[in-house]
Amino acid sequence: MIIDCHGHYTTAPAELTKFRDGQIAALKSPGAKALAKPQISDDQIRESLEKAQLKLQRERGTDLTIFSPRASAMAHHIGTEATSLEWSRVCNDLIQRVCGLYPENFVGVCQLPQSPGVPPANSAAELERCVNELGFIGCNLNPDPSGGLWNSPPLTDRHWYPLYEKMVELDVPAMVHVSSSCNPNFHATGAHYINADTTAFMQFLTSDLFKDFPTLRFIIPHGGGAVPFHWGRYRGLAQDMKRPPLEELLLKNVFFDTCVYHLPGIELLLKVVPVDNILFGSEMVGAVRGIDPRTGQYYDDTKRYLDALPLSAADRAKVFEGNARRVYPRLGARLSAAAK
Amino acid sequence: MIIDCHGHYTTAPAELTKFRDGQIAALKSPGAKALAKPQISDDQIRESLEKAQLKLQRERGTDLTIFSPRASAMAHHIGTEATSLEWSRVCNDLIQRVCGLYPENFVGVCQLPQSPGVPPANSAAELERCVNELGFIGCNLNPDPSGGLWNSPPLTDRHWYPLYEKMVELDVPAMVHVSSSCNPNFHATGAHYINADTTAFMQFLTSDLFKDFPTLRFIIPHGGGAVPFHWGRYRGLAQDMKRPPLEELLLKNVFFDTCVYHLPGIELLLKVVPVDNILFGSEMVGAVRGIDPRTGQYYDDTKRYLDALPLSAADRAKVFEGNARRVYPRLGARLSAAAK
Repeated sequence: MIIDCHGHYTTAPAELTKFRDGQIAALKSPGAKALAKPQISDDQIRESLEKAQLKLQRERGTDLTIFSPRASAMAHHIGTEATSLEWSRVCNDLIQRVCGLYPENFVGVCQLPQSPGVPPANSAAELERCVNELGFIGCNLNPDPSGGLWNSPPLTDRHWYPLYEKMVELDVPAMVHVSSSCNPNFHATGAHYINADTTAFMQFLTSDLFKDFPTLRFIIPHGGGAVPFHWGRYRGLAQDMKRPPLEELLLKNVFFDTCVYHLPGIELLLKVVPVDNILFGSEMVGAVRGIDPRTGQYYDDTKRYLDALPLSAADRAKVFEGNARRVYPRLGARLSAAAK
Repeated sequence: MIIDCHGHYTTAPAELTKFRDGQIAALKSPGAKALAKPQISDDQIRESLEKAQLKLQRERGTDLTIFSPRASAMAHHIGTEATSLEWSRVCNDLIQRVCGLYPENFVGVCQLPQSPGVPPANSAAELERCVNELGFIGCNLNPDPSGGLWNSPPLTDRHWYPLYEKMVELDVPAMVHVSSSCNPNFHATGAHYINADTTAFMQFLTSDLFKDFPTLRFIIPHGGGAVPFHWGRYRGLAQDMKRPPLEELLLKNVFFDTCVYHLPGIELLLKVVPVDNILFGSEMVGAVRGIDPRTGQYYDDTKRYLDALPLSAADRAKVFEGNARRVYPRLGARLSAAAK
């Protein structure tokens, strides 16, 4: 089985965007009546997936996508906590419908109703709803709900602990994933996403978060940002700071996906990061949608890069399936139960 | 000849720090009398270098370091424009003394007197002084003088153009280099530096800056941040945006150093980035000072990684010397004149 740990519903029917546009417009006229939830039929959902994610799963030979709302549209910086909660619930409910229609192909991960300046504790209830009622197996956690102003405390601050307590209680991991950027310095998918990945890793490296939460787990997407390319720098920085080696310091808790869109990058990732810490992911359909003229294949068909490497069968099984089952225990348990 | 394009005077005598501490303290008591410039003897300068940069140059077999004030100490966010100007002049004057004492070993690059909210045009005079009076060959340009708040316009905004005009007039490049971070989210050398590199590249990718300034040149340090690791992502993003290929779009103007502290990283860099765009650099003595227990060598001895690659003699000559002479034409001219 091949599990893609990183997919967003970027192809959702236009009704979803219309709802969001209406929600944002209503922020400017506070007296406006409550918006109707978007009306989306099962057929519309099927159509939005059959031509895109499902087609690509078949073509590329992957099986199950860990699926979450469109990351760039989370935009936690827009409106208030109530705005974010309403939008998150609508998006998460839609993901649940996707998973209900295609239980073999998708399993849900939720957007959290974060909002700048609002305690992360306030996201715990929606996480619990998504896990216990909708059957989700994890969440996307935005380390910068301001959208590029970076004015929340680091992920290692006690500010975040109440949410981590809920994650540990529910035994679900978080993918560290920012959203769109309202800072003109940061292009969303070309800078803000990658910077957030690098930033989060360095926060973990300098803290004792995982002493406080030994079973807390994070997936850093986009291959870990700049981290594998600078693996020697991070090993050296930890050493200069008299921190333990990375393996001991954080590699029981921090994992990387394979959303790196060329063979040399994937090759480096597999060379420097322990294989137990790498989860297959493609971000499909996502940040880069074109075909690489040098290969004639989609840039984001990351399975091809992995297939081109001389990995042992055991290592392949870890990257494509085993690690995801371990990092998302609720998925592991479900797959084991289904196999019986 | 082996030219290291990235060295900072991180080992300057303690008098320099004392001066800076006094300068910062005086910010709190505006009536205080002007500070005396730091009194540093030639012997103190010699001693600060002989045990460090000069020793390491000899041990590693490098010849000439393109040398600038300590990057993390630029701290443009502290005090006012006058603070920054005074501090920059003191630091640049000290670099000039280093270059005067060891003209075979060091050539100067200046710190700019940037300050948050102050037009970059105001840095042009100090750049001109350093190039025309002190014999410097380039500058370090901080894309975020706020120190981690990222509230200046992107490097591609017209805000920066007057400084670019001066760079073009003087025919000097800039290394894009942030300083310390006052944002607790960003560890300076582990996150802020690398993020700035990635951010700047993406700004260049989305703009037509180099149509306006065809001869403007930037060195992105730390191997280009996350960029080479995500080379496929950047090629794909440019393609999706209908931008020209990277070679045409920016590789006549943007260069990377080799400050990547492990062999697989350097290997990737040389594999994906055209050899004409790579300048040997080590950041020595800098961000990572330890010895890698896996190799028994300094992490930042980046020459060893390059020596381990099967580069042709022509490519080696470009990375170690030719590209630096081309990107810093004032250095090229000086070396050519000296050879006659």
